[in-house]
Parts: sequence; structure tokens; C-alpha cells
Amino acid sequence: MKKIITISRECGSGGRTIAKKLAERLGFQYYDKELIDRVAKESGLAKEYIEEQGERITGSLLFNIASNMTYASQVFGNSMLPLQDQLYVVQSDIIRDIAEKGNCVIVGRCADAILQDRTDTMNVFIIADTKDKVIRAAEENYFPNGDIEKQLKKRDKARANHYKYYTEQEWGVAKNYDLVLNSSEFGVDGCVDVIEMLVKRY
Amino acid sequence: MKKIITISRECGSGGRTIAKKLAERLGFQYYDKELIDRVAKESGLAKEYIEEQGERITGSLLFNIASNMTYASQVFGNSMLPLQDQLYVVQSDIIRDIAEKGNCVIVGRCADAILQDRTDTMNVFIIADTKDKVIRAAEENYFPNGDIEKQLKKRDKARANHYKYYTEQEWGVAKNYDLVLNSSEFGVDGCVDVIEMLVKRY
Repeated sequence: MKKIITISRECGSGGRTIAKKLAERLGFQYYDKELIDRVAKESGLAKEYIEEQGERITGSLLFNIASNMTYASQVFGNSMLPLQDQLYVVQSDIIRDIAEKGNCVIVGRCADAILQDRTDTMNVFIIADTKDKVIRAAEENYFPNGDIEKQLKKRDKARANHYKYYTEQEWGVAKNYDLVLNSSEFGVDGCVDVIEMLVKRY
Repeated sequence: MKKIITISRECGSGGRTIAKKLAERLGFQYYDKELIDRVAKESGLAKEYIEEQGERITGSLLFNIASNMTYASQVFGNSMLPLQDQLYVVQSDIIRDIAEKGNCVIVGRCADAILQDRTDTMNVFIIADTKDKVIRAAEENYFPNGDIEKQLKKRDKARANHYKYYTEQEWGVAKNYDLVLNSSEFGVDGCVDVIEMLVKRY
């Protein structure tokens, strides 16, 4: 049986809910905010910064690196690594440690790529039709102001940039995952059913 | 219940076998070579040409268009459409006609994109790990000469080019499908089981 399930997801696809329900059904540990808490504790970085920068690169990469360098020298003293890279290193170490303990569901944060040398992982990607993502984002108030569809796209773009920058792989390309499910087609519970069935079988 | 299953696949992933087994289990009509036969009959083109050009663009697109123009003037007389485009039009019409009758599994040939306005389709993409694709290609003698891995990549690249040229979508990008399955992870029969279960449920 697979012991580590990574759930990558488009913003608004319901991937987080699917991950949570799946963990409950399997009796697995669920890591999302819990991961952020641990990264905060071990890195000394603010949770808000980790949440913002732990799986997104927004705006100009060059600007990010420049401002990271400034922050880095403030926080880490002599360290030459930009802050976002330090965050990635700490986060990766924690993900590897969590995986070592097994029986877990990890949401986002490049966990699929970080754990790619393991054979006991199942990497899942959750997508949804745009109209359903907009409805979910509105219901859950992801973006209080402005055009929701545009902001969803921007969020996914920032995740894709982050993933590519750190893993050198393309986010959302079918061949990087074991299983991709469209939650508009199968519903949140349908997706949980399929993943649960496959986890138990393999 | 979904009435039309389209199966797109990486070369060597076992997608064709999965499609055939799925059609048998569901009692659905299976279209692969059968589609080529019908395109040949309705277009007057040679089966070999349809098989070669019906879902691939190889080499320079410009060269393809130039040589297509020459063929076109030979075969279709006054027609201004390059031959490969004519083939795409005939093939698309036949796929729409097949879909209208329902209860079918269609392999490749941009069927997912051609039928995207229908709501009774399930679009599946089958992938596999490179080592398994090489083994399958060797066993089934896809490429009698030369480096198998290179030729697998070239074949997929040609399919991706063809798909992009005609559908303006990216081949193999998760969000274009309802379901993606890695046959290395779940096996041919495991993939058939999942698709069958989902087809019957939705």
C-alpha cells in the first residue's frame, strides 16, 4: 500500500478538501497548515511569509531574488542563500522527514518532486473547470476584491513558477503525476473514492 | 452514464490495450484502426497515409505544408486545403458522427478536442514511466531499428505538434483531461478498472 499521498492542485479545484477527507478515511496524517506551523517553528520565519512564499513566486523573479537577499542578510546574518531558497530547503527537509514516518497526505509545496526518489508515494493532481473554481473561490472568499477568474489564474501561475524554479519540472503536466482527476467531473467525494481505492489496492 | 470515452496516450503507455479492454467490458464500440478504415473509405486516401498523418506532424511544419499542397493539388484537384488539413476535416466529421451514435471508445486523433462541446464524454490520458514504455515498444516491435527511447519521444513530439496545430491546445497538459492514469503505477487492468468504475458512476 502507498504510504505517502501528495496532492497538488489548481487553486479553487477543491484539492485541499479532497486531501483532508482522504486523510480522514485512510487514517493518515494530514499536512497543510500543519506543515507551515512546523516550518515556522524550525526556521523562525513568520507563518504569513511561509504561506505566501512557500509555494509561489510572484512578479519578477529578479525582484524576488533581490529582495530576498536583503531579507536574508537581515534574518540569517552571514548566510548567502536568498530567504526564499532557505525556506525551500527547510521545507524540503521537513517534507522528507514527514515522509519517512509514512501514512500521510501532503498538500502542495512541491512534495511530489521532493519525494520523487521514493517508491511508496502516489502523486495526485486535482483540476476543475474554471466556472467551478470561480464558484468555490467566491464561496470560500479566497479573493475578497477584484476579478476572481484573473486572480485564480495568477495564483496558479505563481505556483507553476515556483515549482519550475525549484524542481525544474513543469507544474500541471500530466506525465509528472500518477493520477489526475477533474473534480468538476467526479465531485469531491468521487475523487476521494478513486484515490482511496487506488491507495488501498497498490 | 458517459457514452463517449476518448483515450489519448503516450506512445508505449499501453493506452490502446486499455481502450480495447475497456470497450469490451462496457460493451462499447472500439475505434482505432476501424476509424482509419472509415476515413480511408470516405476520403479516398491510403490507409498508410492516414495512419502516418492523421495524428502526427513530423519534421518542419513548413515542409509538411509545402508537400501537402503538392499532394493536395494532385488528389483534390482545385481544393485549396492542404491534404493534411483535408484529412483532419474528414476525420473530425467521422468522429462527430461516431460520437452521435454514442457508446464508444475512441483512441487518439484529437477526439477529446473535437468533441469538447459535448457533455457526455470522458477524456482520459494514459501515461507510463519511460522504462516501461521502452519495454512495451520493444515487445511489440514498434521501432525495429535504432534507439527506442529516442523514437518514443519523437513519436510523442509529433503527436503533440499535430494536436497543437489543429486544436490550439497543449497535448499532455493535465487540465485538458478529466482523468490521467499512469499505467506503470496501476497496471493496464487497474487503469481499465478505474475508468470502468467512473464511467458507470457518472
